[in-house]
Amino acid sequence: MPNDASPTVPTALDLTGDVVALTRALVDVESVSGNEQPLADLVEQALRRHDHLTVLRDGNVVLARTETGAPERVVIAGHIDTVPLAGNLPSWIEGEGEDQLVYGRGSCDMKSGVAVQLSVAAACERPVRDVTWVFYDNEEVEAERNGLNRIARTRPELLAGDFAVLCEPSGAGIEGGCQGTMRVEVELRGRAAHSARSWMGENAVHAAAGVLGRLVDYAPRQVEVEGLTYREGLNAVDIRGGIAGNVIPDRCVVAVNYRFAPDRDAAAAEAHLRAVFAGYDLTVVDVAEGARPGLDQPAAAAFLAAVGGEPRAKFGWTDVARFSAMGIPAVNYGPGDPSKAHADDEFCPAAEIRSCREALLRWLQG
Amino acid sequence: MPNDASPTVPTALDLTGDVVALTRALVDVESVSGNEQPLADLVEQALRRHDHLTVLRDGNVVLARTETGAPERVVIAGHIDTVPLAGNLPSWIEGEGEDQLVYGRGSCDMKSGVAVQLSVAAACERPVRDVTWVFYDNEEVEAERNGLNRIARTRPELLAGDFAVLCEPSGAGIEGGCQGTMRVEVELRGRAAHSARSWMGENAVHAAAGVLGRLVDYAPRQVEVEGLTYREGLNAVDIRGGIAGNVIPDRCVVAVNYRFAPDRDAAAAEAHLRAVFAGYDLTVVDVAEGARPGLDQPAAAAFLAAVGGEPRAKFGWTDVARFSAMGIPAVNYGPGDPSKAHADDEFCPAAEIRSCREALLRWLQG
Repeated sequence: MPNDASPTVPTALDLTGDVVALTRALVDVESVSGNEQPLADLVEQALRRHDHLTVLRDGNVVLARTETGAPERVVIAGHIDTVPLAGNLPSWIEGEGEDQLVYGRGSCDMKSGVAVQLSVAAACERPVRDVTWVFYDNEEVEAERNGLNRIARTRPELLAGDFAVLCEPSGAGIEGGCQGTMRVEVELRGRAAHSARSWMGENAVHAAAGVLGRLVDYAPRQVEVEGLTYREGLNAVDIRGGIAGNVIPDRCVVAVNYRFAPDRDAAAAEAHLRAVFAGYDLTVVDVAEGARPGLDQPAAAAFLAAVGGEPRAKFGWTDVARFSAMGIPAVNYGPGDPSKAHADDEFCPAAEIRSCREALLRWLQG
Repeated sequence: MPNDASPTVPTALDLTGDVVALTRALVDVESVSGNEQPLADLVEQALRRHDHLTVLRDGNVVLARTETGAPERVVIAGHIDTVPLAGNLPSWIEGEGEDQLVYGRGSCDMKSGVAVQLSVAAACERPVRDVTWVFYDNEEVEAERNGLNRIARTRPELLAGDFAVLCEPSGAGIEGGCQGTMRVEVELRGRAAHSARSWMGENAVHAAAGVLGRLVDYAPRQVEVEGLTYREGLNAVDIRGGIAGNVIPDRCVVAVNYRFAPDRDAAAAEAHLRAVFAGYDLTVVDVAEGARPGLDQPAAAAFLAAVGGEPRAKFGWTDVARFSAMGIPAVNYGPGDPSKAHADDEFCPAAEIRSCREALLRWLQG
């Protein structure tokens, strides 16, 4: 495919051809969160052409199930939405042969992973373990809109399984579990006064020196959980204070984000922060618990063997935590460098797309 | 005057009657900055009825001069605008007899002072020192709109004199000079990163800990200048930093206000702040130099004797600094508690209005 190819928007998806071409076709159907319907339609139509799959549609979530009666069922999920465009559609290719890179919005996060799912779903007619393929919407926006979240709430039986793989970009390596995230606000109160008579007031911004000092002095944990090492972080992500250029501020708020290893739940994370900020007024704004890697589960063994390589801990929060909350061990595994997700120059190496496809096939065909 | 009096808006000013009634009349003509024309018209018309005064009008600035040929000329100035209303018009009276308080927008800052000016201007037909009475607009807004500033720039000869009194509220005591004010921004730079991998970034908000620490440790000077003690202040008046709840901030800005005694000029104030924040990136946003009290000047002696009491240092910045910049010693002297300026429950004690009027008359009549 020449570098200057300018594909038109596809009107059908061929799941049986080259998986890199399929990636480009998916990228070329714009599907910014909230606008997934055209792509969900194409995915549904393409899957329905394969008789070994039972296809269900629920809003813009598409599910495809094999029903071989195998003793084990695995869930392989990916989201079809992207963050907003940045002048990076339609897709393009840079490099040649084994070094080809697919560029364009969603190429990394995560239409290359979706292409792997679709290609393997079509190819694998008689898997040794039954598969529930999940394609869902609104992952890049608030949790209430998340399609996987909605199905888990309304039709959890559709997500039942012994093990789950989320095809988020992980550099074609296994990233186990994920860290939790908690956001708290530390509020400092003072007393306003004219800055010409500052001794009549009490400066709330100056009081934040102590809070920032504790953050500077903080030594984050590195914790081993089920064989993977998680590296925590505690950071101010926002600070605001001030009324006017001639007034002593009476209020300052420091927003702090705690990323915590999956050996801690929400209550333990909160207790830890209350100890770190003892003496300060702390409010929990939001929390999402992490997920244990679950790599010691029997269901994970065959997957690890088929994929190979050394599993790593996942630092960012992903939807694997939703499976974890349902009691299903889950890992991240997909093509693309996670640090390129959401980047304007987002891309995915073609070689990783192909290697992920082959690994999933190995695992499912036994 | 009963407490429940509901005065109508006056259509003329009587400068020869009771000075407290005149204060209420001035308060009842709304003159929020930018809307001074109706009041400037009334002031001009009232002054023109007194033949011993030469009246000039320049925009909404009204000047009235005696021309007795006395060897000395003093400038007595006040602004006729107010900050916006807060449901505090028309004026009202609380208390009885010597304890009467005049309430309403501008009663303290500074229509009671303007009433004293107008009453004394009318009463004092043959002063022992010539007087230039100045009534100006737009003191409560940005310096470029300030009427006194405009006259000083375009017709400085009108403000020439040996000594100046600004009738800003000073509790009917002499407040000498004023402190300078400088606003600087200290900018911290870091490197953005996803907060799940905070070690890839550099937190600019954490870097502000050092800046706030220096402010907390700072010991402000108390300086005696020409017999008055000035108390300085160095305060963060604003802090902003943060991109999103999951991003390590790459920038944080601390706005700092330095109120400095009039023994320092702008250059000395800046040098001091650069020393305090050595190692940090500091930008001067704005500066207004202070004014030395000038109470050791010969022109001040008769004023001090006539008014009596112990002069105090002025902490807030006022237009006395404009006179100081023209080489004219200037003091603040007027009725009303400066801490009530701009307050919703702004008021002025009637007794202070009367005592200021008597003191000015004593001084001018020799």
